[in-house]
Amino acid sequence: MKKVEPRILSGFMELLPSDQILFNRMVDTIRTTYEEFGFLPLDTPTIELSEVLLAKAGGETEKQIYRFLKGDTDLSLRFDLTVPLARYVSAHYNDLVFPFKRYQISKVFRGERPQKGRFREFYQCDIDIIGNESLDFIYDAEIPTVIYHLFQKLNLGKFTIRINNRKVLNGFFKSLALEEKATDILRIIDKIEKIGEEAVSQELKELGVEEEAVTKILAFLKIEGTTEEKLEALKNLSEEETFQAGVQELEIVFRALKDFQVDENYYTLDLTIARGLDYYTGTVYETRLDDYPSLGSICSGGRYENLTEYYTDQHLPGIGISIGLTRLFSQLKEVGLISSLENSLSQVLIVPMDKENNGFVLEIANYLRENGIKTDVYYQEKGMKQKMKYADRLGIPYVLIIGENEVQEGKVAFKDLKTGNQELLTKEEVLKQLTK
Amino acid sequence: MKKVEPRILSGFMELLPSDQILFNRMVDTIRTTYEEFGFLPLDTPTIELSEVLLAKAGGETEKQIYRFLKGDTDLSLRFDLTVPLARYVSAHYNDLVFPFKRYQISKVFRGERPQKGRFREFYQCDIDIIGNESLDFIYDAEIPTVIYHLFQKLNLGKFTIRINNRKVLNGFFKSLALEEKATDILRIIDKIEKIGEEAVSQELKELGVEEEAVTKILAFLKIEGTTEEKLEALKNLSEEETFQAGVQELEIVFRALKDFQVDENYYTLDLTIARGLDYYTGTVYETRLDDYPSLGSICSGGRYENLTEYYTDQHLPGIGISIGLTRLFSQLKEVGLISSLENSLSQVLIVPMDKENNGFVLEIANYLRENGIKTDVYYQEKGMKQKMKYADRLGIPYVLIIGENEVQEGKVAFKDLKTGNQELLTKEEVLKQLTK
Repeated sequence: MKKVEPRILSGFMELLPSDQILFNRMVDTIRTTYEEFGFLPLDTPTIELSEVLLAKAGGETEKQIYRFLKGDTDLSLRFDLTVPLARYVSAHYNDLVFPFKRYQISKVFRGERPQKGRFREFYQCDIDIIGNESLDFIYDAEIPTVIYHLFQKLNLGKFTIRINNRKVLNGFFKSLALEEKATDILRIIDKIEKIGEEAVSQELKELGVEEEAVTKILAFLKIEGTTEEKLEALKNLSEEETFQAGVQELEIVFRALKDFQVDENYYTLDLTIARGLDYYTGTVYETRLDDYPSLGSICSGGRYENLTEYYTDQHLPGIGISIGLTRLFSQLKEVGLISSLENSLSQVLIVPMDKENNGFVLEIANYLRENGIKTDVYYQEKGMKQKMKYADRLGIPYVLIIGENEVQEGKVAFKDLKTGNQELLTKEEVLKQLTK
Repeated sequence: MKKVEPRILSGFMELLPSDQILFNRMVDTIRTTYEEFGFLPLDTPTIELSEVLLAKAGGETEKQIYRFLKGDTDLSLRFDLTVPLARYVSAHYNDLVFPFKRYQISKVFRGERPQKGRFREFYQCDIDIIGNESLDFIYDAEIPTVIYHLFQKLNLGKFTIRINNRKVLNGFFKSLALEEKATDILRIIDKIEKIGEEAVSQELKELGVEEEAVTKILAFLKIEGTTEEKLEALKNLSEEETFQAGVQELEIVFRALKDFQVDENYYTLDLTIARGLDYYTGTVYETRLDDYPSLGSICSGGRYENLTEYYTDQHLPGIGISIGLTRLFSQLKEVGLISSLENSLSQVLIVPMDKENNGFVLEIANYLRENGIKTDVYYQEKGMKQKMKYADRLGIPYVLIIGENEVQEGKVAFKDLKTGNQELLTKEEVLKQLTK
């Protein structure tokens, strides 16, 4: 028979069991943390009507979409979890309790040209809080509080949550009479860490920004000191209304973060953070690992004034953040910050010497499983050496050997594969060993 | 702004939070049980190359596939989890430990004409055990043992796992010199419960099966008694080689099931079970809820001789079973066997009286979360009545009210929403109340 090469598409991630176990542990930590903070689970369809999913989209996004006809129906695969959330909240408005706090951990699809570290199918782990008519600014501090606790638990070393506010940026440009160029200016200053101050200055001038304004913009971006000092400097920088509103929001957020006992070393006011171009309207976040700046932002988001304007007349402001887990996982593996240690989840392997004692074998297995011990049993008819090799290759730390003698005594031979020690134990003693 | 109607496609499931919580609890139970039995997690891409995914497919399957071009690449969404498993095992043969036991809980896609209870996007929860060259028949008993424990935990009432063997069926038809009609005969007898004995007899005759053979087939299907009696009757029915091999396999499986302490009331030898037409080669399973026969089989599978023949020369026999969870969930809801009881996962809601005490509020929240209590906090500036309504609508059973007095005393007002009782407690006392 002619064989087909069993390959997958480039830009798609598929893991060996040891990495899958590691990946799932990260997902579990993320999910548990989100749930601890009161977020509700959501799972939207992978395929939606293009008309619905692309109500807003345009430009680059639209080009990347997996879009196709099935019969006469124009379908698309979701490219993020925010648009489905907007659609969901609009459709189920009357059934939801606001503020609606939801998390979704699902795959999204973007047909980008594949390049190192970019994926076409990847997990996003999102939380959002949607208010009905209004949403208190304290929630702008709750989001980074969740992120702070989550990344502590993920144990990826020192990180910094960078916080800014789009009103401060937009108001500042307005005060310079540059509001029409604001989008382009944001795009340029977003690159300052990558290309440096001089290149930014050059690009701003090419955009037609006057020398004097360029100087002011660069001075603004370089405001230094503690968060309090920065906020104080901002307050006196411009009387512009939007600007002052943004500064006030930042004050609320930073005061709440202090109240929330988030370690001050883990967040900062960073005036260069802009995040996207036309989406966010208030607080914006980026998160970086201090020791791995090359990874870029590993968790980003912000506040949007009206989530659902394409679907409903309701006014639903919200705030959210997203972790692109597939990319993050691949980067963390590459820099060695995480590595897979387990080839199996099983805590113990039972090895029957022959098929005559399956009753006793399963009595032991059932007892251990009922007590929460993940227990595998090896049933292939092979020599003892090959049976032990199964445990060894899977990295299962303990083996229970059961033969005629063991059944007679009502005990099992408990073998520690690390030390090689073996002793005859009752099932209760085995459980004690495995849970200590 | 013109609004787009926020609808989803028919044949796709999307749940409100209360149902999503219920659905996720079922997934968690399934996953935990699979892991307790030593199965490893796997997560394959949603999109694959059509050439790879459709290496075997044909007929009905192919028509249902979501298939499309992206650029020049011919892509398909996976329509089951078995073909991706075959591809995965072929590609990673050298990195896997055999028998390879894996579970996968993922969505699959089939563009069927939508009808009641049928979904175009649905979760499959699969386990498979793949042997290298050979796989002991004891594993054919391990699969229903997992299912037995799983459905006990899912608590869906009395169920029966029906077990048969394709070799017994094929060998029996061969002994009647009907092997060329075997596929059609299987298709017909598969319907016996639906259409009755007479209609089956009629259809068999229309197929060209002689009267005498029809009588023998119907007598075969009606063999009665205990499993031991049925097996005894089968042994004497035909000398045909394949038939006898099948009977022997059944004997091994039923003996092991007894050893494995699976309650005999929960499984049976059912000679009418055929499962699919050209896929399975040995043991086959169906599972039905005794009180809800109209639901059909809620968990089916079987043994296949060579999983990977389209991808590799390796000989990899396997055995597996699948739960179509989306459909099952929808059916269980409809017949009222399950119902959503929670609108939230949070065990407690903290309600600050004002914004002045966020430090103390978060001290309490952090303490509870660190001790595993899912804790939500309400930050909107609303009246106390509206704050309590949030807890009430979400069904959160306890509320902690924190105002100036509470902060002064270092305690919180702990309110039980069911009884209306309220008392002033320390955070340690609150934890004790919530964990008792």
